[in-house]
Amino acid sequence: MQSEYLSRVKKLVINKISISIGNSNLIEDAMSYSALAESKMVRAGLVFASSETNNNNLHKDSVTTLAAAVELMHTYSLIHDDLPCMDNDDLRRNQPSSHIKYGEANAVLAGDALQALAYEIISEDLHLDADEKVRSIKILSKACGKNGMVYGQYLDIKNENNKDIDKNMLDEIHNLKTGKLIECSIMLGQIGGSAKKDLINVLDSFSKQIGLAFQITDDILDVTQPEDVLGKNKNSDIKNNKITYIDVLGLDAAKAKAKELTELALKTINTCDISGTDKLMDLAKYLISRQN
Amino acid sequence: MQSEYLSRVKKLVINKISISIGNSNLIEDAMSYSALAESKMVRAGLVFASSETNNNNLHKDSVTTLAAAVELMHTYSLIHDDLPCMDNDDLRRNQPSSHIKYGEANAVLAGDALQALAYEIISEDLHLDADEKVRSIKILSKACGKNGMVYGQYLDIKNENNKDIDKNMLDEIHNLKTGKLIECSIMLGQIGGSAKKDLINVLDSFSKQIGLAFQITDDILDVTQPEDVLGKNKNSDIKNNKITYIDVLGLDAAKAKAKELTELALKTINTCDISGTDKLMDLAKYLISRQN
Repeated sequence: MQSEYLSRVKKLVINKISISIGNSNLIEDAMSYSALAESKMVRAGLVFASSETNNNNLHKDSVTTLAAAVELMHTYSLIHDDLPCMDNDDLRRNQPSSHIKYGEANAVLAGDALQALAYEIISEDLHLDADEKVRSIKILSKACGKNGMVYGQYLDIKNENNKDIDKNMLDEIHNLKTGKLIECSIMLGQIGGSAKKDLINVLDSFSKQIGLAFQITDDILDVTQPEDVLGKNKNSDIKNNKITYIDVLGLDAAKAKAKELTELALKTINTCDISGTDKLMDLAKYLISRQN
Repeated sequence: MQSEYLSRVKKLVINKISISIGNSNLIEDAMSYSALAESKMVRAGLVFASSETNNNNLHKDSVTTLAAAVELMHTYSLIHDDLPCMDNDDLRRNQPSSHIKYGEANAVLAGDALQALAYEIISEDLHLDADEKVRSIKILSKACGKNGMVYGQYLDIKNENNKDIDKNMLDEIHNLKTGKLIECSIMLGQIGGSAKKDLINVLDSFSKQIGLAFQITDDILDVTQPEDVLGKNKNSDIKNNKITYIDVLGLDAAKAKAKELTELALKTINTCDISGTDKLMDLAKYLISRQN
């Protein structure tokens, strides 16, 4: 059922991304190559699932726009993170990384253009009002900027070879690097509603909990799944001397932690009187049961 | 007088950029290092000069915001263009390039965060209404994206070693790489007004004319000025086997062309009944008389 939901979301989002990028030049080709490659589209799923709660009145096309914007942003970050000067990974989404396929310069440019396009498609959406667009862009730019995703990636690279890293520091890195965009996805799904402060706080906690569970699961899969299932370089963290949750907690405790965080997230969302949370809860469960 | 005007603009914009970036982490340090370095801030000047025409009613703080956003975007593009995989330039704004000072990974990240911040500060401006913000973000994202600045940089790199490049192709490259953001600066200055289609067309032509004159002047200065006056690598184009206007036209004809384009621009802007165009005209003249 979960995968059926994500499949429907993916179909809409891929169509939106494909039309938004176009195919008139090589940079657009490079953008599509990475953005349309097979992926889970978890973040797009979270935008949709969040939009189904709390009697939001977002037009379905606008949910698609916001979900596509988040996926464009996520894709740009993957392209830049894979660069030789960053994680130097040559496999992503089951195909050669952008810089392997198009060269480093074009990979940097494709990432840059994907970021610009994320803002552009929100600004051009046909159903969001101007205020909703501005709030969406504010949330997205903050999540992805110097105190969000970018800073997380900086900390991640800075802490390569840091043997003294502890769980709190790992939590901070991944809360920024992965968590901020996950949180942003859930908040964008609320743009059409009038979510009160206490609901926003609940969703914020829920996001942080599933975000960490997501990252811990990534670390688990990295050591338990073969590369062709992962679709990206296995042992990339080991290669880059990055400490993972497996190093800090051990495999069994990491699995228990991911489960515990997910159960906490489900409990969190039930503390508030929100309607239509079943899709969000399904996604939370999916995030730790997935195979890649 | 011209430099006095730009000095006043720079003071406001540097203050805005400095506050917006902050100084709480190394990525912010890297962003400030490049964005606050001594520069002409021509694009910021164009936003201000444009805002003084046509009875615009933009709040001065909002003009500063838009000017700062354009300069953040320009700075990000310089940082990424200087990367080893692009133009591999180690001197920019009279100091070591971002990747020399902070390393390649942090230079990529600082550029990425500067782009995000450009949108963020527009979304958070206190005086622009939501509709003005959305229009500004739409103009900025289009100017800098896959069919604008990014595509220009792609074409610029792609045409390295292309001996058959002609003036039309050079015009296209520079219209995209440099011209789009110049045009964007002038359009952002009009956000507060109700510029009619014919005025927009006039400003559009004016932008394209001064944009090309600006680029031709850059090529002229690159061969006539010493590196310490330029503040960036001299002969970078020669190193990268890039064809310039000097190669295509020769030095004297290039100077004549820049002058001719500027005269045309001044004539263009006088074909329309717009008030307060003196600052724009002053800037157009400054662009070809500058020393770096």
